[in-house]
Amino acid sequence: MEKIELPRKAVYRLSIYQRCLQRLRENGVDTVSSEALAKAAGVKSTQLRKDLGYVGQFGTRGLGYNVETLAEAITAALGSTRLQPVVLIGVGNLGSALLRYSGFKKEGFEVVAAFDSHPVSDRVKGTGIALHDASEMEEYIAANAVKMAILAVPATHAQTVANQLVKAGVQAILNFSPTVLEVPENVYVNNVDLAIELESLSYFIR
Amino acid sequence: MEKIELPRKAVYRLSIYQRCLQRLRENGVDTVSSEALAKAAGVKSTQLRKDLGYVGQFGTRGLGYNVETLAEAITAALGSTRLQPVVLIGVGNLGSALLRYSGFKKEGFEVVAAFDSHPVSDRVKGTGIALHDASEMEEYIAANAVKMAILAVPATHAQTVANQLVKAGVQAILNFSPTVLEVPENVYVNNVDLAIELESLSYFIR
Repeated sequence: MEKIELPRKAVYRLSIYQRCLQRLRENGVDTVSSEALAKAAGVKSTQLRKDLGYVGQFGTRGLGYNVETLAEAITAALGSTRLQPVVLIGVGNLGSALLRYSGFKKEGFEVVAAFDSHPVSDRVKGTGIALHDASEMEEYIAANAVKMAILAVPATHAQTVANQLVKAGVQAILNFSPTVLEVPENVYVNNVDLAIELESLSYFIR
Repeated sequence: MEKIELPRKAVYRLSIYQRCLQRLRENGVDTVSSEALAKAAGVKSTQLRKDLGYVGQFGTRGLGYNVETLAEAITAALGSTRLQPVVLIGVGNLGSALLRYSGFKKEGFEVVAAFDSHPVSDRVKGTGIALHDASEMEEYIAANAVKMAILAVPATHAQTVANQLVKAGVQAILNFSPTVLEVPENVYVNNVDLAIELESLSYFIR
């Protein structure tokens, strides 16, 4: 099936709705109002209705959305994310923790290999994930057709590593290095900058 | 000084500009064009100019921004974030890694205590951070006037813990639990959902 062209931020929000619907299904809920779903997802209900319009779901006034049907429509629009292999680059404190983070696998992502310029086997202990020297990274990615990478190297190395990832065929990078990466237009980057998250919160403290 | 009222997303972007300016200063750069700063921050230059308007900085056509002056204006608008004490709740794999993440301290945040319902001292080893039983959390926060918390507990416990944090006086929560928290209007939450970050990226892979 051809993918629907969706705006980047709508994709992000649809992923959140999908997770909320999953919870509702687990709790045996069959229908949900746009107001309730919007609240659970932390968005305005006008935003929710607009986003669900992208996937062809418009709800029925007074009846709300059928949880099952809506979840299927979103899955069809987003495409399956099942068993997408991911590599992790930079096995420091944060990288090592990310390898142990069970949330990725639960959502269909498997970290298939980890790379570090100074591979220390203790840091992957108990994870069952193979740790390689950074010099093997490009070859591994190309040989295994890996399209996604998690980047957790120091800021000073992030751009160099990102260039190598792109060259080897990576199309999407989840970047934990506190720096803005320059990548070609056809490569997507999501940034998670933990210090900036805290900093921007602190403004609101009285 | 009275804080300027800034939109939430502008605060976030101003924090990013601040970090970019910091790098420029470290590299001995005195002036920067709005285009170059926008690119470094990963935003459009129209957005950047609008945001800098909030802090009273409009640049000079053809000359760009003075790095030092601009950094000072942003700091004045955002207020100092120096030495803001933070508590961390939930010392699992992710929480334990966050305790070791050097980026927080570098940006002026000090994790002053960690709490867990099953405190395991090994998990804070070498960090110098005291680990307490979760039952002591509310009293500690109130007694030490802590306003910020990092939440890294399982999703099933997140709302209960968030309620306790708010009750004890916390005004800002950095939430790593994959769930949307309901909090009073005067409490601010930033969500970092690692699985959703990956999921929304995977849509763009061909």
